[in-house]
Amino acid sequence: MTTPWSQRYAQRMQWMSSSVIRELLKLTDRPEVISFAGGLPAPELFPIETVERAATKVLREQGSRALQYSTTEGYRPLREFIVERMSRYGIPARAENVLITSGSQQALDMIGKILINPGDRVLTEEPTYLGALQAWRAYQADFVTVPLDDDGLCCDDRLEEALCAGPKFMYVLPNFHNPGGVTLSLERRKRIVEVGDRYGIPIIEDDPYGQLRFEGDHLPPLLVLDAERLNHRDHGNGNSNGYFRDGNVIYLSTFSKTLAPGLRLGWIVAPEPVIQRCVMAKQGMDLHTSTFDQMVAYEVVHDGFLDEHVRKIRRVYSERRDLMLEMLERHFPPEARWTRPQGGLFLWVTLPEGIDTAELLPVAVEHNVAFVPGMAFHPGGGPSSSFRLNFSSSTPEQIETGMRRLGEVVAEALEQSRAVPA
Amino acid sequence: MTTPWSQRYAQRMQWMSSSVIRELLKLTDRPEVISFAGGLPAPELFPIETVERAATKVLREQGSRALQYSTTEGYRPLREFIVERMSRYGIPARAENVLITSGSQQALDMIGKILINPGDRVLTEEPTYLGALQAWRAYQADFVTVPLDDDGLCCDDRLEEALCAGPKFMYVLPNFHNPGGVTLSLERRKRIVEVGDRYGIPIIEDDPYGQLRFEGDHLPPLLVLDAERLNHRDHGNGNSNGYFRDGNVIYLSTFSKTLAPGLRLGWIVAPEPVIQRCVMAKQGMDLHTSTFDQMVAYEVVHDGFLDEHVRKIRRVYSERRDLMLEMLERHFPPEARWTRPQGGLFLWVTLPEGIDTAELLPVAVEHNVAFVPGMAFHPGGGPSSSFRLNFSSSTPEQIETGMRRLGEVVAEALEQSRAVPA
Repeated sequence: MTTPWSQRYAQRMQWMSSSVIRELLKLTDRPEVISFAGGLPAPELFPIETVERAATKVLREQGSRALQYSTTEGYRPLREFIVERMSRYGIPARAENVLITSGSQQALDMIGKILINPGDRVLTEEPTYLGALQAWRAYQADFVTVPLDDDGLCCDDRLEEALCAGPKFMYVLPNFHNPGGVTLSLERRKRIVEVGDRYGIPIIEDDPYGQLRFEGDHLPPLLVLDAERLNHRDHGNGNSNGYFRDGNVIYLSTFSKTLAPGLRLGWIVAPEPVIQRCVMAKQGMDLHTSTFDQMVAYEVVHDGFLDEHVRKIRRVYSERRDLMLEMLERHFPPEARWTRPQGGLFLWVTLPEGIDTAELLPVAVEHNVAFVPGMAFHPGGGPSSSFRLNFSSSTPEQIETGMRRLGEVVAEALEQSRAVPA
Repeated sequence: MTTPWSQRYAQRMQWMSSSVIRELLKLTDRPEVISFAGGLPAPELFPIETVERAATKVLREQGSRALQYSTTEGYRPLREFIVERMSRYGIPARAENVLITSGSQQALDMIGKILINPGDRVLTEEPTYLGALQAWRAYQADFVTVPLDDDGLCCDDRLEEALCAGPKFMYVLPNFHNPGGVTLSLERRKRIVEVGDRYGIPIIEDDPYGQLRFEGDHLPPLLVLDAERLNHRDHGNGNSNGYFRDGNVIYLSTFSKTLAPGLRLGWIVAPEPVIQRCVMAKQGMDLHTSTFDQMVAYEVVHDGFLDEHVRKIRRVYSERRDLMLEMLERHFPPEARWTRPQGGLFLWVTLPEGIDTAELLPVAVEHNVAFVPGMAFHPGGGPSSSFRLNFSSSTPEQIETGMRRLGEVVAEALEQSRAVPA
C-alpha cells in the first residue's frame, strides 16, 4: 500500500503554502537582471581578512572547543559582548537574558513555538517582515494588522481596535522598517509600551538594522522604555531591574547586517523565565548554534572592530540610499511616492491605487530589473500598489542603470492604467 | 497590568517540561567527575589543522560567498558530495533529495513540523534517542513503543500491535543504537520495510553512527531496502527510481560524529516532494544553515580526507569500547548485563529490576563518575534499571578509573537492594 506523501502532512502545512513571490523571484536569477529584490548586505564590505585571522586564531588556540558541542544558551563571551554592546543603548541585560540564535529567523520561529497556539492572533504592522509571517504561519497564527505611516505603526484608534482583538503579542520593527523604510517616532514608542502594559500584551521588538542609522538621533528601543516603566513602578519599594522578571518586551537582533549573514548569528534579549523557555525549545530545534561561528564572530568583534566596521557600512549604504532617492526623483513619474529611510537597507515605493505590483514584476524582469511586490508583506495577501527596493547590495552603477529601467517600466504602467477606462 | 509570563506560553510548552535528567547531569560538571554521560565525540581526534586550512582557503578564494546568505537547500557541492558518498551504501539519491540541516536535531524538528498534528502517535523503539523525544513532544506527539533486544527493534506481535495504533510514522535507529548500542538485523530491516509499506506508515531512519562500524558486515539501510521494493514493483512497467517519488523512508545523517559536531551539519534524504516541504519549513526556521560551515566542511571532506579520518575514529573508539567491556567484566557484579556494540559511541547496561538508576546517579556522582539513567530514553518516563555509557570521549585512563568507581557503586547498590526484603 502506497500512501501518497500529500496525504501525510500535518495540518499546519496548509498555512505554509509556497510563496507566489518566491516563485516570481526565481525569474530574477539571471546575470543581466539588476535586482533590488534581495535583502542582502553588500558582500564587498564583508571583513573577509579579519574573519580569516579570527578563524585561524580560534582553531589554533581553542580548536577542540570550537569544533565540539556547546551549550544551548550560546558561547558565554559572545553573550557578554552582546550585553556590553547593548548597554550602550541603555538595554539592561545580563548574560542570563541573552540567548544566541541561528540567525534572527530562528528567534522568530522560537517565539512562535513558545507563545502561539493554533488560531492565536498576532498583531503586526502592515506591511511587515515576510520572514515573521512565514515563521508564525507555521504555528497557525491569524494576523491582525495596523498600518504604517511615515512615523511607523499608526498609534491611533486602529491600534486600540487591534489590541481589543486580543492578540498574543505585538510585533514591531521600530528602526528602518523592512519593508517600509520608516522609523517609529519616540512619542509612538512610548505609546506602544504604555498600551502593551495596559492591555497585558507583550511586544516583540525586531531590530536587525538599528545600528545602521545614517543620520538623525538614535531613539530608545521599546525595551529601554519598558524597563524605565518598570523602574518607575518599583521606585521606592526597594526592587530594581524589574525588566529581568516582568519585562514586557522581547528584543531581537543579529550580526547578519553588521558582520555577515552567512554565519547565521542572532540573539534574543528577554526576561530570564522567557529565556529559559526559549532554551528548552532550542534544545529540540538544533541543540545549539554553530560553536565555530560563535567563537569566530566573538574573535572578530570583541576588540572594537565592529564599531569601525559599522561606520564603514553606514557610509556606503547612506551613499547608495542617496543615489537611489536621486534616481527616484529623476526617473519616476510624479504620481509615485516613496519613503526616505534614515538607515537600514530598504525603501518602499507606492504607485497609484489600481496598479498591482505583482503584475508589474514580470514586466520589470523583462526589462532586466527586479523588486519585491508589496503583496509579499501583507499578511492577508491581495494586490498591492507598493513595492520594496533594496539599496545596500547594488553598486552605484547598478543603481543608476536599474532605476532608469524601473522608472521606464513604472511610467509605462501608469500610462496604460490611465488609458483603461475606470 | 502585568500578566505573568507563565500565563502566556503556548499549550505545547506543557509537553516540553524541563528534563529531570538534564538537572541531574548538571551535577556532573565538576572536573573531578569522570563522565560517561555525554554523547560527545573525542575532541583529540578533531582534524583541527585540516579545518584551519579549509577555512583559510574558503575565505581567500570565496570569502564573499562564504559570508553571504545562501539557499535553503544547502551548498550544492556539499549536497553532491553527500549524494556520491551515500551511493556507496546503495542509497539512490540525487542532489534534489538532499537537504542540509543545522545538525540532525533540526532534521528531527523539521520532521515533527511537517508531519505531526497534536495528538498524533509516533512509533519509537524503547529506549530511544532523547533528542527525538524532545523535538516531537513540542508537536504534542504521543508515543507508542516497541522494545529493543540484541537484534534491535522487536519485530513480533508487539510491532504489529503498535502499528495498529495508527502511528504517523516509525522512528528507527538501525546502527549502533543510541542509547541501546544494538544493531538491527538484516531480517528485521526487511520486515520493517515490508510492514511500513503494508500499513502505509513511513519510516524515519536515523543513522548518525552508521560509518562508525568497528567489525562485522555493513547492513543495508532501510532506505535501500525500500528502494529495492519499489524497483521490484516498477520492474517491467518502464518506471525506475520509484524511491524519488514514492519512497517510504526518510533517512537522516550528520557530520557530527565523523567530522565535528560544533559545525552543526546534518542532512535529510527523502523523496523530492518531502524535501520541498522541508525546504518550506526550513525557510521559516532559520532560512539556511551557516554558509561558512557548509563550505568549510566541503573543503575538508571532498578529496577523500573523510575516509582516512573515519578509519582513525573507528580504531580509537573500538579500542575504547573493548576497554570498557573489559572493565565491565572485571568490576561489575554478575547480575549486571550489557550490550556489545559493533560500532558507534554507546553501550547500555541493565541492572536487576528494582534498581532505579535515576536514584543511583547522585550516588555515582558522589563517587566522581556519571552516566545517563535509562529513564531519560523512555517516552513514558518512569524508573528504569538501565543506564547509558559513552565510550568515545574518555581516555583509556579515564575508562579504567571511572569504570572501577562505577563498579563499586553498582555492587553496593545491588547489595543494599538484596538487604531490603522484597
